[in-house]
Amino acid sequence: MGAGKSRNTMHLSKQSQLLSFVRERGQASRGEIAQALSLDKKTVSGLVEELAGQSLVRKAGFRDSKAGRRQELLAIHGSHSCFIGVDLGATHIIGILTDLNAVVLDRIFFEIRPGLPVDLILSQIKSIAHRLLSSDKATAPVKSVGICVPGFVNSEKGISLIAENIPGWKDIRIKDILEGELDRPVEVDDCSRAFGRAERWLGEGKKAGNFLLLDLGYGIGMAVFIHGELYTGSGNKSGEIGHTMVKLDGPECTCGNRGCLETLASGQGIARQAAHDIREGRSAVLAGLTHGNAEAVTAQDVAVAASMGDTYAAKLLREAGAFIGAALANAVNLLNPSLVVIGGGLASAGRVLLDGIQESLDRYTMMGIVDDLRIELSRLGPDGSALGSALLAMEHVFSP
Amino acid sequence: MGAGKSRNTMHLSKQSQLLSFVRERGQASRGEIAQALSLDKKTVSGLVEELAGQSLVRKAGFRDSKAGRRQELLAIHGSHSCFIGVDLGATHIIGILTDLNAVVLDRIFFEIRPGLPVDLILSQIKSIAHRLLSSDKATAPVKSVGICVPGFVNSEKGISLIAENIPGWKDIRIKDILEGELDRPVEVDDCSRAFGRAERWLGEGKKAGNFLLLDLGYGIGMAVFIHGELYTGSGNKSGEIGHTMVKLDGPECTCGNRGCLETLASGQGIARQAAHDIREGRSAVLAGLTHGNAEAVTAQDVAVAASMGDTYAAKLLREAGAFIGAALANAVNLLNPSLVVIGGGLASAGRVLLDGIQESLDRYTMMGIVDDLRIELSRLGPDGSALGSALLAMEHVFSP
Repeated sequence: MGAGKSRNTMHLSKQSQLLSFVRERGQASRGEIAQALSLDKKTVSGLVEELAGQSLVRKAGFRDSKAGRRQELLAIHGSHSCFIGVDLGATHIIGILTDLNAVVLDRIFFEIRPGLPVDLILSQIKSIAHRLLSSDKATAPVKSVGICVPGFVNSEKGISLIAENIPGWKDIRIKDILEGELDRPVEVDDCSRAFGRAERWLGEGKKAGNFLLLDLGYGIGMAVFIHGELYTGSGNKSGEIGHTMVKLDGPECTCGNRGCLETLASGQGIARQAAHDIREGRSAVLAGLTHGNAEAVTAQDVAVAASMGDTYAAKLLREAGAFIGAALANAVNLLNPSLVVIGGGLASAGRVLLDGIQESLDRYTMMGIVDDLRIELSRLGPDGSALGSALLAMEHVFSP
Repeated sequence: MGAGKSRNTMHLSKQSQLLSFVRERGQASRGEIAQALSLDKKTVSGLVEELAGQSLVRKAGFRDSKAGRRQELLAIHGSHSCFIGVDLGATHIIGILTDLNAVVLDRIFFEIRPGLPVDLILSQIKSIAHRLLSSDKATAPVKSVGICVPGFVNSEKGISLIAENIPGWKDIRIKDILEGELDRPVEVDDCSRAFGRAERWLGEGKKAGNFLLLDLGYGIGMAVFIHGELYTGSGNKSGEIGHTMVKLDGPECTCGNRGCLETLASGQGIARQAAHDIREGRSAVLAGLTHGNAEAVTAQDVAVAASMGDTYAAKLLREAGAFIGAALANAVNLLNPSLVVIGGGLASAGRVLLDGIQESLDRYTMMGIVDDLRIELSRLGPDGSALGSALLAMEHVFSP
């Protein structure tokens, strides 16, 4: 903001501010923009004309003001450009094609069977991206691609450092690989953060300053938002709630430590426990659901068994919920957020898990802190992380 | 920063920026200030003259620049004004008198015996403040007073909402009470945050962006700093690491929940456990140290017993350290800070507790995250929170 910056940078920054404001609001009049950005109306009109000329902003009808005058509304022009968002999970790849308003135009789902080699996973990602690039649903050229991967990421260099839940996946230069293949800029982030980004822009997090996104799936992750901004930590490794200790000297985790939340309550942890207990003959329902192949059991099977009235499955989910609630309460006691959004595949495992979470959260969150807190289930469905990846891809349009 | 703000506000904000920069650096030349604040040298010289005229900035000698020219250095003028900082703990009141550079000029310590009535505590605080106000060590008039209290605080209204560790202490309008008594502005915050503020400005936190201050005492608190700023949470209640769950279904806590860190590892928790075990005849050394009055035992006694080779006391401290390390690891895994500073009365309980913390921290912190992390013991001594209170009092000089 100082005298050292050039006029051009200042101007760009005003364009970005205008775009961000309109994006945040959905629709806004020139007067609202002028007030919010502390600019005079003439400057705003000039900026709007420039952005409309670039097809970034479109005129979106009129609204009557209190004073009786008609105000023209402005909105982001969705068909300015398209984007691809890819979510690589331990058990799936989801690819979506969106416009600049993050409206999903096309979608591809691929299930990853356990043990699929790393090079085949990479081939699938490329293939999905190519199919989306040539999709006939596109309303504009695809400008860039975002991809999220589980585990630690070097976002700057676009390297997926390690994904403990994908065997053999380590130091994958995914940005370089995909940029070479797709001939477009590629951005990389962690999947829970991508999910959080989607909640921040499209979901419950829209109006929350300090909020947490709890991503319950095959692993367990968290995105931390402080004053509306993603908090990444000093080494880009924040949010590892899956590896917070909830049971002293508990079972060993893939990370090498003991008693981590993930070992006790993630999709993977629940499935591992269920497999063991099926072999011990503790659930006839689950043995039936998996046709006697205990190793193949998933957390989803456990959820189905619980919904069929299997008391073993219900107990397993409730206990998992209790651990999740306790870890979440710890994060809430530390950070006193106004909102927690719970999402991910495991969040749809049904009432019994969620009841376990809520009960434990009530039990371990401090009285005064729980008063400030709202808990919501994500409404973004299974595409939360893929949407967040598309948002990551389009970030440079709003903040060049 | 927008066009809506008046020239005067902009000017004030430049003065503040200059003061904050010089304060942060200790000493700075006009050239360094100009570069850091993106101002031209003439503007800087003008601002410096104004601030020197108000006795806020003083000339602090010369330094030779690389180019061979002598550069005049500027520093904050400590004797511009004095401040009082008060730290109310569960077992003590510390009052200090400082100058604008936070140099301690005078100090008063008062031990609170268990069960001292609230009105007598308040009388003592007033008495200490009056004695400091009339101290002959003052180098300038006392401009304002900061006080920290344990537990939840409404900082805006200056109300101490609840301090669970001081019986009967609830909804104390401490700002109003002290302003009426002392005829000066009074600022109020939580003691762990005050301690964190002292670390941020005077201690290890000086150069760290994301850091945690772990305050181990009669209770256990934490101050969270994000990008160098104190993070307060959505309801001003962040940092309650003392009430994070470290043992499912553990002992009941003063907060009403179970298995909180404070019940297992605070000064209070250690003393309670020791009192129980002295009655059970588990430590002859501790029974001797307390002359058979088990109820009077303190965590300090346990530390002394451990240093005398008492294996019971050493085990108790090591276990407490293990719980503290686990809770700290959880916070570190969530926030990936670059620095954790450990301080407070219990931090001086000796090697055995610290070894327990370190061991457990190593055990439960994720591999990649521990690489970014530096752990330091606070060097501010027992006055950390009182110093932070004085810094709170002088904040309005730097950010009016």
